[in-house]
Amino acid sequence: MKPMHKYLVVASGAALAIALAFAACQPQSAPQGTNAANLQDLMKARNLTEENVQAALKTYTPTGVKDEYYIFASGGHSGQVFVIGVPSMRLLRSIAVYTPEPWQGYGYGDQSNKILEQGNRDGKSLTWGDVHHPALSETGGDYDGQYLFVGDKANARVAVVDLKDFAAKQIVYTNLMRSDHGGTFVTPNTDYIIESSQYPVPLGGAYADPTKYQEQYRGVAMFWKFDRAAGRIAPEESFAMELPPYMQDLADAGKLDSDGYAFINSFNTEMSHGGISEGQPSLESGASQNDMDYLHVINWKKAAEVAKAGKTETIAGTRIIRLKTAIDEGLLYFIGEPKSPHGVDVTPDGKEIVVGGKLDTHCTVYSFEKIKALIEQKKYAGNDPFGVPILPYQDSIRGQVEIGLGPLHTQFDDKGNAYTSVFIESVVAKWSLKDLKVIEKIPAQYNVGHLVAAGGDTVHPHGKYLVSMNKWSLDRFAPVGPLLPQNFQLIDIDAPKMQLLYDMPIGIGEPHYAQMIAADKLHPITAYTPAGTDAVTGKMDPDHVVGGKEGIERRADGVHVSMTAIRSHFTPDIIRVKRGDLVHLHLTNQEQAQDATHGFAISEYNINLSLEPGKHENVDFKADRAGVFPFYCTEFCSALHLEMAGYLVVEP
Amino acid sequence: MKPMHKYLVVASGAALAIALAFAACQPQSAPQGTNAANLQDLMKARNLTEENVQAALKTYTPTGVKDEYYIFASGGHSGQVFVIGVPSMRLLRSIAVYTPEPWQGYGYGDQSNKILEQGNRDGKSLTWGDVHHPALSETGGDYDGQYLFVGDKANARVAVVDLKDFAAKQIVYTNLMRSDHGGTFVTPNTDYIIESSQYPVPLGGAYADPTKYQEQYRGVAMFWKFDRAAGRIAPEESFAMELPPYMQDLADAGKLDSDGYAFINSFNTEMSHGGISEGQPSLESGASQNDMDYLHVINWKKAAEVAKAGKTETIAGTRIIRLKTAIDEGLLYFIGEPKSPHGVDVTPDGKEIVVGGKLDTHCTVYSFEKIKALIEQKKYAGNDPFGVPILPYQDSIRGQVEIGLGPLHTQFDDKGNAYTSVFIESVVAKWSLKDLKVIEKIPAQYNVGHLVAAGGDTVHPHGKYLVSMNKWSLDRFAPVGPLLPQNFQLIDIDAPKMQLLYDMPIGIGEPHYAQMIAADKLHPITAYTPAGTDAVTGKMDPDHVVGGKEGIERRADGVHVSMTAIRSHFTPDIIRVKRGDLVHLHLTNQEQAQDATHGFAISEYNINLSLEPGKHENVDFKADRAGVFPFYCTEFCSALHLEMAGYLVVEP
Repeated sequence: MKPMHKYLVVASGAALAIALAFAACQPQSAPQGTNAANLQDLMKARNLTEENVQAALKTYTPTGVKDEYYIFASGGHSGQVFVIGVPSMRLLRSIAVYTPEPWQGYGYGDQSNKILEQGNRDGKSLTWGDVHHPALSETGGDYDGQYLFVGDKANARVAVVDLKDFAAKQIVYTNLMRSDHGGTFVTPNTDYIIESSQYPVPLGGAYADPTKYQEQYRGVAMFWKFDRAAGRIAPEESFAMELPPYMQDLADAGKLDSDGYAFINSFNTEMSHGGISEGQPSLESGASQNDMDYLHVINWKKAAEVAKAGKTETIAGTRIIRLKTAIDEGLLYFIGEPKSPHGVDVTPDGKEIVVGGKLDTHCTVYSFEKIKALIEQKKYAGNDPFGVPILPYQDSIRGQVEIGLGPLHTQFDDKGNAYTSVFIESVVAKWSLKDLKVIEKIPAQYNVGHLVAAGGDTVHPHGKYLVSMNKWSLDRFAPVGPLLPQNFQLIDIDAPKMQLLYDMPIGIGEPHYAQMIAADKLHPITAYTPAGTDAVTGKMDPDHVVGGKEGIERRADGVHVSMTAIRSHFTPDIIRVKRGDLVHLHLTNQEQAQDATHGFAISEYNINLSLEPGKHENVDFKADRAGVFPFYCTEFCSALHLEMAGYLVVEP
Repeated sequence: MKPMHKYLVVASGAALAIALAFAACQPQSAPQGTNAANLQDLMKARNLTEENVQAALKTYTPTGVKDEYYIFASGGHSGQVFVIGVPSMRLLRSIAVYTPEPWQGYGYGDQSNKILEQGNRDGKSLTWGDVHHPALSETGGDYDGQYLFVGDKANARVAVVDLKDFAAKQIVYTNLMRSDHGGTFVTPNTDYIIESSQYPVPLGGAYADPTKYQEQYRGVAMFWKFDRAAGRIAPEESFAMELPPYMQDLADAGKLDSDGYAFINSFNTEMSHGGISEGQPSLESGASQNDMDYLHVINWKKAAEVAKAGKTETIAGTRIIRLKTAIDEGLLYFIGEPKSPHGVDVTPDGKEIVVGGKLDTHCTVYSFEKIKALIEQKKYAGNDPFGVPILPYQDSIRGQVEIGLGPLHTQFDDKGNAYTSVFIESVVAKWSLKDLKVIEKIPAQYNVGHLVAAGGDTVHPHGKYLVSMNKWSLDRFAPVGPLLPQNFQLIDIDAPKMQLLYDMPIGIGEPHYAQMIAADKLHPITAYTPAGTDAVTGKMDPDHVVGGKEGIERRADGVHVSMTAIRSHFTPDIIRVKRGDLVHLHLTNQEQAQDATHGFAISEYNINLSLEPGKHENVDFKADRAGVFPFYCTEFCSALHLEMAGYLVVEP
């Protein structure tokens, strides 16, 4: 850098000061367009304040510079997961999980169809999900960057995403529930993935009229065993626990001091079940009568032992610890929680549990030490109608924080602070875990649901960044019709005061929760190696095709086409079959170079494969109409990409 | 603003200078965190150059500030359209077109299912498309902000999107082709939407072996008539033109001087058709032999008269002007174009046509005046094998521009400059239309396909912004596995030199082309008014439900459920039916407030409606299993959103 000259600046405003400062810095060979007038005009023309300039510099990420953090956000009823870079707040990728997505070839070829089919309940095709709570795999209570789990509220399913290739690998469900909400949340070493039901139904898919709600409807907490070596959930090693027909809500696993326990909120201890046209209160009103609902305290480690000891029943294929067993074995306790609670979040040290009551003005801070002592002393304030022991509320808590109207979810930083989303007041409240006092609030535009901070629910939160996941955006963005994006607001929580840095519209789904992980924790692959790998199993596909060994062979079960793709042709590029033939296409992308993805589509056959480098895919189809059907590469791969095509020729 | 004091700054670098300038501007009550150390640290810590700071300030868009421009980008094989704000480069929304998308409820209820069903060719369900070229409706050669049209390369379809509500309304296709590429492009007043085929097939879906390629395979240009009053394409008023079996590629409509004409590129005048395993050259090699392919010059206004006069045949339901008629009536001419041409773009004054040859190093600039004179003089250089008159190449052009290796697509600014994407060299080249000389190049990271400039293909380009739509991103972003996002690079074209402003990852599809329109041209609605409107017809749905008139009624054709949604309950909230019942659900969102969207999902029934304010939806389903199935609002609508739920109770 050239030495600067002394200079005198008479400035009348920040913009001018910056401009002049820049001007003073310009050597003869100034970078293109960098001059004082330009900068001054810029701030003026774009009406930027000093704070805007700061925010711009805190978020702008120049070409080729990588983001520091990834956000993995649920996609709500899009059925997908969104990967976002922080601090740039750029959408890096969506990951197809419950909904077929043709760009990724997900649901348009055999391998991924099989994953989706795992999720077809009662054999019924389900082509979407309502993804609520993503959970990154953890080791010792910290994200390890290996796997991501996501729940589907609509159909009570759980999916596994492998972060080596950012692809879904498995979908599981239990017939004990039909909808979930408190899922997914992992235990500190990812032994179990917790999924709890939202709207109670009769266990195992039975029929019972809503008037029999209290007797026959039940909630369920599911503990899915994760086999890390296999990278899959092991349903046969998983178990459930029966719960009363309250509406179980968010969950969190204990950690450090509270490791071995899980905490699940509930609302509707009134056991309202609707019937607005039948003289009953709506759920909205019926579920909002009581001052207290019940925080569920579950000893999952002990429950796992109880399940292992065989003290379960098997209903609809799942081992379940019945409510009576849970009570008798000391696995389940309730504590009152005010009022219509929603979020439950364990502090980084595992010592406390923070609950936000959505019709309350407080967060309640429960002490795990006190809870444990009460359990040990069997000091109960009574039992619920199902016999579950209730721990005395006042003896369980350390205190309450006066937050504001509608506190929901809480995240943590590295300095002993908590951050709670306050829905009705539409702010993020920062408060001290030590003092239980609000330090500062920052407005959210608008209607904040969850928050996510960097490592904000782990044993080692990072501080630094927090995102307010706002449900409504209203006037924030250029209008796009009646269906508006949500608004993710990035907030600097390292500054002396919280500073809003960025508004990111989310116009592809409705995220609920997210987790934010340091980018250097992830080590994704760039190709499937060697060429011919099945992306789901990670092993060589038995039908993989080696260059030079391509061909078309008629066998008893149909016509097998063994094809390769390499820039810029398919081999073979003419497939001759007869009308009515069942065709088995086996296609290997021979490339290993990063980003050398090919696609494969056949006109009017509803097939589209995404063949990343080295990937092998199989797809079956019936050549049911005579005619000539072009096939081609759908991913722009080279200058002669348009010439990467061929014909499926179906003789009459 | 407080008056500033004179101050003396001794600076040793740009960062420090800015920091000190800021420091000097700080009154006692400094905005949070705005201080010298902070700013200096920021540039240092984030390693930002002066140019980065400029770019940040040119793109950063503070909370609540609207973007100046919209980009409507095709979504490639995602099947959707992406709406992006400029200069912030934020994804504002995706619009579901060819692929079901549950967040938008698209393909999960009756109204939108009907749109998708329009696109089911031969009754075969098609659940994706390969969206290539979006075209905004035009009036007088300028975007009017009313409609958007998009082609589906995979299945040769065209869709209409209404920009009042950013929703797809119609899908059409002709059985004359199976794949398209040169579509969609509109004529200057949107009389016609041009769609031309990519891979020739026998006309009308017939069978013919590829060895009969020259005799029996054909290209087709389709001219879809747009009925602006109805907001729909009128297939019965549309017509096609038969073309030789070259591979027709991009298209553009003439304007001003050249209004009434259309220009379509082609490659593969070699009539190669693959057969790599049958001793034939691959298409990649076979289609790259000739030095020249043919620019197709079509007089579509005259063709429309010829069609109107009945000089057509009807094949597979579409009126087609046969090749002989096109020749005899003077509707079709060819001109040589070097080599493997790809993009064809008419200049803003309509006087010239720019063609990029993807295996060439030049852009060729054709003069419409010269072309017209040659046609009038019948001055031909011969005929192609099908008898189409060929205009002499040298007499048709004004000249060539030495661009670099692999020129593709060209856009224009308001100062007489053209911008061409150069794929193999991986740059954007700015050149003078007057001098046909390159002025400047800027690198693209990496492999640029299309470009889009503000109004860049209209009669009044805006200049200002240009986006390089790069196919590969490689090392630009934090890694996300083997399937990488594309990279949209925003370039300032108003600065003295082109300046790269922003890298935007596109990780949800593979855009091909885009158009950029000033935001003030669009006037979208915020609600469907009055409540009960069918979003597709724009009229009151016959089954709309008024508050207080809800109910469940058993009729001959099944059980009709008339339901309303309003924060925060559905009425009725218990639906009792018998196993085997056909259920007709009619659901009106009573809200009119902006952003007060509700969703409606039934567990395990694969139904998810998106009910924007005032929208009415119908959905039919068979209650095929006994049991209790929760339904609930899938769009977070209020503090008691979770309580907005009910039960579908199916008696055995």
